[in-house]
Amino acid sequence: MQNTIDRLVKKNRKWVKKGHVATYIPELAKQDPGLLGISISELGCDQWNAGDWQVPFTLQSIAKVPAFICALQDNTLEVLTRKISVAPTANGFNSIENLETRNEQKPLNPMINSGAIAAISMVSGASLEEKFQRIFHMIKKMAGNTNLKINQAVYCSEKQTGDRNRSLAYYMKSTGIIDIDVEELLDVYFRLCSIEVNCQDVAKMAGVLAGDGNFSPDGSPLFDTQTAKIAKAVMATCGMYDGSGDFAVEVGLPGKSGVGGGIMAVVPKKMGIGVLGPALDIKGNSLAGWKLLQDLSLELGLSIF
Amino acid sequence: MQNTIDRLVKKNRKWVKKGHVATYIPELAKQDPGLLGISISELGCDQWNAGDWQVPFTLQSIAKVPAFICALQDNTLEVLTRKISVAPTANGFNSIENLETRNEQKPLNPMINSGAIAAISMVSGASLEEKFQRIFHMIKKMAGNTNLKINQAVYCSEKQTGDRNRSLAYYMKSTGIIDIDVEELLDVYFRLCSIEVNCQDVAKMAGVLAGDGNFSPDGSPLFDTQTAKIAKAVMATCGMYDGSGDFAVEVGLPGKSGVGGGIMAVVPKKMGIGVLGPALDIKGNSLAGWKLLQDLSLELGLSIF
Amino acid sequence: MQNTIDRLVKKNRKWVKKGHVATYIPELAKQDPGLLGISISELGCDQWNAGDWQVPFTLQSIAKVPAFICALQDNTLEVLTRKISVAPTANGFNSIENLETRNEQKPLNPMINSGAIAAISMVSGASLEEKFQRIFHMIKKMAGNTNLKINQAVYCSEKQTGDRNRSLAYYMKSTGIIDIDVEELLDVYFRLCSIEVNCQDVAKMAGVLAGDGNFSPDGSPLFDTQTAKIAKAVMATCGMYDGSGDFAVEVGLPGKSGVGGGIMAVVPKKMGIGVLGPALDIKGNSLAGWKLLQDLSLELGLSIF
Amino acid sequence: MQNTIDRLVKKNRKWVKKGHVATYIPELAKQDPGLLGISISELGCDQWNAGDWQVPFTLQSIAKVPAFICALQDNTLEVLTRKISVAPTANGFNSIENLETRNEQKPLNPMINSGAIAAISMVSGASLEEKFQRIFHMIKKMAGNTNLKINQAVYCSEKQTGDRNRSLAYYMKSTGIIDIDVEELLDVYFRLCSIEVNCQDVAKMAGVLAGDGNFSPDGSPLFDTQTAKIAKAVMATCGMYDGSGDFAVEVGLPGKSGVGGGIMAVVPKKMGIGVLGPALDIKGNSLAGWKLLQDLSLELGLSIF
Repeated sequence: MQNTIDRLVKKNRKWVKKGHVATYIPELAKQDPGLLGISISELGCDQWNAGDWQVPFTLQSIAKVPAFICALQDNTLEVLTRKISVAPTANGFNSIENLETRNEQKPLNPMINSGAIAAISMVSGASLEEKFQRIFHMIKKMAGNTNLKINQAVYCSEKQTGDRNRSLAYYMKSTGIIDIDVEELLDVYFRLCSIEVNCQDVAKMAGVLAGDGNFSPDGSPLFDTQTAKIAKAVMATCGMYDGSGDFAVEVGLPGKSGVGGGIMAVVPKKMGIGVLGPALDIKGNSLAGWKLLQDLSLELGLSIF
Repeated sequence: MQNTIDRLVKKNRKWVKKGHVATYIPELAKQDPGLLGISISELGCDQWNAGDWQVPFTLQSIAKVPAFICALQDNTLEVLTRKISVAPTANGFNSIENLETRNEQKPLNPMINSGAIAAISMVSGASLEEKFQRIFHMIKKMAGNTNLKINQAVYCSEKQTGDRNRSLAYYMKSTGIIDIDVEELLDVYFRLCSIEVNCQDVAKMAGVLAGDGNFSPDGSPLFDTQTAKIAKAVMATCGMYDGSGDFAVEVGLPGKSGVGGGIMAVVPKKMGIGVLGPALDIKGNSLAGWKLLQDLSLELGLSIF
Repeated sequence: MQNTIDRLVKKNRKWVKKGHVATYIPELAKQDPGLLGISISELGCDQWNAGDWQVPFTLQSIAKVPAFICALQDNTLEVLTRKISVAPTANGFNSIENLETRNEQKPLNPMINSGAIAAISMVSGASLEEKFQRIFHMIKKMAGNTNLKINQAVYCSEKQTGDRNRSLAYYMKSTGIIDIDVEELLDVYFRLCSIEVNCQDVAKMAGVLAGDGNFSPDGSPLFDTQTAKIAKAVMATCGMYDGSGDFAVEVGLPGKSGVGGGIMAVVPKKMGIGVLGPALDIKGNSLAGWKLLQDLSLELGLSIF
Repeated sequence: MQNTIDRLVKKNRKWVKKGHVATYIPELAKQDPGLLGISISELGCDQWNAGDWQVPFTLQSIAKVPAFICALQDNTLEVLTRKISVAPTANGFNSIENLETRNEQKPLNPMINSGAIAAISMVSGASLEEKFQRIFHMIKKMAGNTNLKINQAVYCSEKQTGDRNRSLAYYMKSTGIIDIDVEELLDVYFRLCSIEVNCQDVAKMAGVLAGDGNFSPDGSPLFDTQTAKIAKAVMATCGMYDGSGDFAVEVGLPGKSGVGGGIMAVVPKKMGIGVLGPALDIKGNSLAGWKLLQDLSLELGLSIF
């Protein structure tokens, strides 16, 4: 395994030149586009790492998965889907169009910005601070890392440039999907996006999903099997924005990407994978990270299909 | 197993009253909405049947899967995706909107009408008749049934009421996605939709996909592993129209439905499933068939996630 | 004339029962739906009034016309149309969809909410307070009424329920159409919408447009002929939201409606008309007011076509 | 007047280089892009001509106006608008998107392709040939020219490349807007588009509208005032495709353009204008013809606003 991932990181490093780091958040534009790293967390606890796996990056949209898991724990699926669909979309991650043109006027799924913002609002907590702490706690437990911190520079940058997200949130407030203070709610969203991790943290988070939530890095169960299966199903159909269909075809795993360059991929019952490659394709997914996962899936026969 | 499926058919038969048979094709409106049947074809050849599994019905959109498989065999994925995306869509099966508003102006995926029509046009064959025979042959081999026939009444009904499909096809002709005679091309499409099968035929077709195309009912290999995995990935993300996301969450299997009431579902490496339930939900999927698959998946732990 | 308008008010009062007062702004829901009034301000200064012409109401979207006039005075048309189109739209007044799907991502015209908000941002003024005062001054001069005041209850109600407008504004901020503080900018917008007038005020405002801006109620010129013609052209094609085409066919005059129940209509070179009828049709235009204008236009041959 | 139009043709001829002849119909691509001509038909029968006014060109979309007039004569406005709206649209002339996304699923207005095709289907006539003859007769009467003929080469070219129009028509057939043979109906549409005229013919057609239909070139009344006013209102709001708003602002006249390079413009109660300039802007309107009308309207104060 170590040889395989060392070789595949080396082979796919050429792709970093084809992508571009995210620039709409100024702080993200400072990332090194040349990075490529991977960590694999096998159930039963073997851990493999290669390339720039130790370099820290921010979770960004990967945080949508634990936020959704918390919302699923605190609401029945039936209640949740009154406000958030689980339908894939061919539109981009920050699209507002479907909010207006679809009859039901609710976010299409919890893996796009509007859906994640709505999901956070449904997490238990007397205050927005409590909602944040509940999700942050889940992330730390999944990663088995109590030292996770928010990258303040990225958080401030997100907050300053989050006007599209403000637009999405006020739209949902006007239609009744959310009914709490928009700026406070977005503050939680921006903080979650700015949590700093490395590939190993993400691999361990994915590993918890691979094990259906029954085992976390410290051994304790974190969520039930049904929640895990729903989360993985939503990742598989919606996790890579409008590239989700291609990811299913080319990689064949439930995955979730973030514009920080990370991808979290799950091989059910087998392993969790965390990848870093800040140079993104035009849909906002790590370009070299995707290629690396594609090779890995093919060589090891990891596709769920 | 026999007990399980007998029980689940009985339990879920109540759902037939909540759905409605398709009426936009007059001949389909004559179907008995009360039917519910299932066949399971396990790899290694055990076959299980329950309920109204012997009642014939037409493939309808289930035929999009073998058509896509043929197109994949006759073109590289790279060539195919120049004309047909593999992106899920939250729009309905006969939507024309995305053809116009998406920059690339190509069908979003091969599991909706426009994409299937484009896929047929890319299947090898000197004439449209040859393209039809190639796909029909694939269907017969997958079902292990050389006696499959076209239901002439349904075929005529489709042809007479196929104006939305004509609109889709002429749109694609105007943008260069297809460049052959529209009426002849649609004739192939309508004939494929009108092929008559029963649950066991569909289960065996699904079984070939479960076995990655390496074994067909007569033992011979039909297509390569990569083609099988692509087909299943596309089914999983796009196979149930705008219900695909919900199907992933609730059933967790690659599936493809048809407005004739059939659903073909695949449990990779394990089994193929064929279901009949002509009473449809508002998205065009068999309502009782979906519920039956949901129970079966949960009881037997079939979800791929 | 007096007989004509008395008769037509009486005849069309029946229509008030077919419409509904706006409810999305709670304060507007308190309006009396039974009201119907009209004022006509002929060039040369004859003034005619009938029905409930003295009842005060808030300008609402009618304020978009003077805001646009100020923006036209402070910017060349060429500069203005870099940020706001003058294209009619078949979508509703608060639509956000076109902002996203149109390539240029700018408001379709200054008579819908997004376009008016953008127009206000382009009015001269060192501060947003100065922009407000500039437009408010224009309104007072056009109406020949220095006593116009803001209805504080409506203003507060607008501010509390303006989330859709916040969504529109943040969207435009995210695409660079506007670059000032959203909440302050909307405050100007909400204040302008909340200015209280009666039919005679609106008729006089329309009268200034009828005279191409060359004469205001106090005799002084207010804006140049070209500005007046542009404003009337935009009213004629976009002034009644997605009812603009029907209004051109049925009434044949440049008009602008507001959800407060007012309509301002212009008969070029002849007269200005102000109408009040708070019961609205489903597109947000005064139902009885529209019918009254339709009768008046037909009887007096006022159509510009 | 003669001096004015000679001068303005000369001044605006430079604009022909900025546009491009239509190429989607191969036969139209053969037009000389350097042409610019104008004819003016004053009520009371003075006729003025300048530039390339004698060069023949095909009516194309200008034929939508007489087709709509016939449909208005043969149906009440109320019946007509059950199948065709009169709403302006910011989408292009051959858009299919709005047919699907608008709730009512009917063409937005009779000046875009779908609406014109629907209008033709509503013209009286036992056969499609009779419908064609009825509209062709109207065109000849309006132009005062019994020698008008179809340009066969253009007609054949239209027929061969009309797939987008076929798509629109089949879409409308699938939703019940039209219920006659699509290919025959389109044949009428293609023939009407291919009628060959010159600027003077178009100016006289416009002149009939200027006189509210009460006088035709041979002196007889052609249609009633109300029909004329409706036609002009629809031209003013929808006649220049998605350039209609700009045309109202810049020219201020009801107008209708065709991709053959013609524009028909009406000065109510005063004159009809026909312009030719085959080099089109990106929205499909004659570029130099538009500029020529803009200058003429400004110099002579023709704007209706």
